[in-house]
Amino acid sequence: MTTSSEPSESIENDYFWMAKALRLAEKGRYTTSPNPNVGCIIVNRNNQQVGQGYHLKAGSPHAEVHALEEAGEQAQGATAYVTLEPCSHYGRTPPCAKALVKAQVARVVVAMTDPNPKVSGRGIAMLQNAGIQVSSGVMAAQAAALNTGFIKRMVTGKPWVSLKLAISLDGKIALSNGQSQWITGADARRDVQRYRALSCAVMTGSGTAIADDPSLLVRPAQAALASYPLKRIRQPVRVVIDRDKTLPDNLQLFTDGFPTWRVVSDEQTPSADDLPFAVTDKKINLSDVLQTLAKKNINRLFVEAGPGLAGALLEAGEVDELIIYQAPKILGDKARSMVRMPDFASLDQVVNLTLHQQTQVGDDLKLVFRVAPSEKS
Amino acid sequence: MTTSSEPSESIENDYFWMAKALRLAEKGRYTTSPNPNVGCIIVNRNNQQVGQGYHLKAGSPHAEVHALEEAGEQAQGATAYVTLEPCSHYGRTPPCAKALVKAQVARVVVAMTDPNPKVSGRGIAMLQNAGIQVSSGVMAAQAAALNTGFIKRMVTGKPWVSLKLAISLDGKIALSNGQSQWITGADARRDVQRYRALSCAVMTGSGTAIADDPSLLVRPAQAALASYPLKRIRQPVRVVIDRDKTLPDNLQLFTDGFPTWRVVSDEQTPSADDLPFAVTDKKINLSDVLQTLAKKNINRLFVEAGPGLAGALLEAGEVDELIIYQAPKILGDKARSMVRMPDFASLDQVVNLTLHQQTQVGDDLKLVFRVAPSEKS
Repeated sequence: MTTSSEPSESIENDYFWMAKALRLAEKGRYTTSPNPNVGCIIVNRNNQQVGQGYHLKAGSPHAEVHALEEAGEQAQGATAYVTLEPCSHYGRTPPCAKALVKAQVARVVVAMTDPNPKVSGRGIAMLQNAGIQVSSGVMAAQAAALNTGFIKRMVTGKPWVSLKLAISLDGKIALSNGQSQWITGADARRDVQRYRALSCAVMTGSGTAIADDPSLLVRPAQAALASYPLKRIRQPVRVVIDRDKTLPDNLQLFTDGFPTWRVVSDEQTPSADDLPFAVTDKKINLSDVLQTLAKKNINRLFVEAGPGLAGALLEAGEVDELIIYQAPKILGDKARSMVRMPDFASLDQVVNLTLHQQTQVGDDLKLVFRVAPSEKS
Repeated sequence: MTTSSEPSESIENDYFWMAKALRLAEKGRYTTSPNPNVGCIIVNRNNQQVGQGYHLKAGSPHAEVHALEEAGEQAQGATAYVTLEPCSHYGRTPPCAKALVKAQVARVVVAMTDPNPKVSGRGIAMLQNAGIQVSSGVMAAQAAALNTGFIKRMVTGKPWVSLKLAISLDGKIALSNGQSQWITGADARRDVQRYRALSCAVMTGSGTAIADDPSLLVRPAQAALASYPLKRIRQPVRVVIDRDKTLPDNLQLFTDGFPTWRVVSDEQTPSADDLPFAVTDKKINLSDVLQTLAKKNINRLFVEAGPGLAGALLEAGEVDELIIYQAPKILGDKARSMVRMPDFASLDQVVNLTLHQQTQVGDDLKLVFRVAPSEKS
């Protein structure tokens, strides 16, 4: 029962429904990876919702499928709001663009096109070729923020890298004798759990692995994930830089039953979970590591590391986002600095940041920076 | 023409008029010192303002005098709102409590009592003894915030000490080679001008004096003082720590015609503007210096210093307020730290702060901390 009359259109309605679709999409934030978060809402000509859905887990149906199923015949002549361009390829599920055509929707509003330049636009073309009216770019920035990691991987072949540091006001992470527990408060540590849950992988260096013997897993109770639709969230895979394979086997990372990938020199004999890399000047190229992680479907990488790895990532220009928990304390110049970096000779060589977000977390300040491209490049 | 009927009273009205009196008081913020900022409003029985005044400059009439003059005979039976307990002593001007009695006001509302414990309450007693109804404590916290320096000096015999530091995210003030201009932006530097204008004195160390040859004066154009009631604001006196009197005579501090006090060892031959102090373990006791400054009527001391003096003041527990301009940059561990402090062996020895205010100033973050009393004390 296709109809020739135009579906009702208003910018206010488009924003209203897309905002709702984005909130739906968010519900899958801890489990869709390596897939993106997507939400879909189907609205009839009377501006009433007749179906909704979101992607919850890789391998399970896409958002559009859920929404179309709920809408049934009411999808005919309706408008579908989708937070990401519907897929056009046969993967583990048939293409969603095809399903929308089959359901005879009259209009599709898309927040953003597929970030993969090789496939971007094909889903929209499939819809348009079937005579469906398509609007694109409604709340595109919000949709992109939802899938920062997925987009970064699709566009650059590297994961989105968030570097977390817990520091004092004077940029120190521990006293000279190593004492560091706890510089920041309980609220800050709880906030970190949420980032681990959002991330496909958590990276650390061998120094931290030995000093703290951390699990780097999400403690669901602390992460306040009680209202999450799935009982079990996905734990991030741990990635530890262990060039010479000298880390002891009895660390939590290697004994708690959850996967840990060890980044090692290719001169070592690799074990099953080892990722071997060439070593030049005693260093493994971190950009190579990131590319390998992306190939292994890591969208978001959360780095919890000491001054060495943190400094190396910043120096390599591989940090997208810096998440700082700043405690209201002064540890003094003898204490340990947050990053090891070269002795810069000129202020135009330093790392430039842009403040993106500031909030108080307990007694601490949480500062989120984006790393600005080097002034010299 | 005294009248026996009670003046109209309502809490809402008291807050309304006291808030206005506080705003008036603020108008003298750059020129009343060593006197406090005070505002006064006189309101008749119909809740109409009949007089207002504020203290603008030491030696000129007090707020109450201006307000009573404007009110004239209408002061009879009226309510006077005063942000600080009216004075009871004969100084450069006759006591304001006496003037209020003479004008036959019926009620006086006072935000806070005189902070000097030796005279506190005498002004109120003088009013009450004359049969005037007195309410005290209306917006006391706001009134105290207006006169932080005056109150600190009256209560402790030391000035209010604000330590300002312009740092990077990792707590650095300069590269290892000394390069530091400009870590923070123009807006932050402009904000500093306002603090200089608010302060009776600006203190620095000999290292900064030599390295930067600063004037430490207010540049009125930058401080945005155009709307100030007086054409000329008071410049802060400069205080420079120069134990061995080794600073060259041709520094701006000593040649620009504005006063500079030099804190020197009492083993040196003092010049007219030198303040000599005993030296123990190669150090001048900073607490002694602060007491001397208070005796010289310094209410607010603004410190713009390098890591040595900043660290020494923090260690001595003499910093009341830490004003941080934090630039979104990372200078690295080789760069110069914001404070020189002992090598703490335990985290309960470090300096604990409380975040009091956070604002963005241009691209930088401005963080105002109060220094928390040591956990061990």
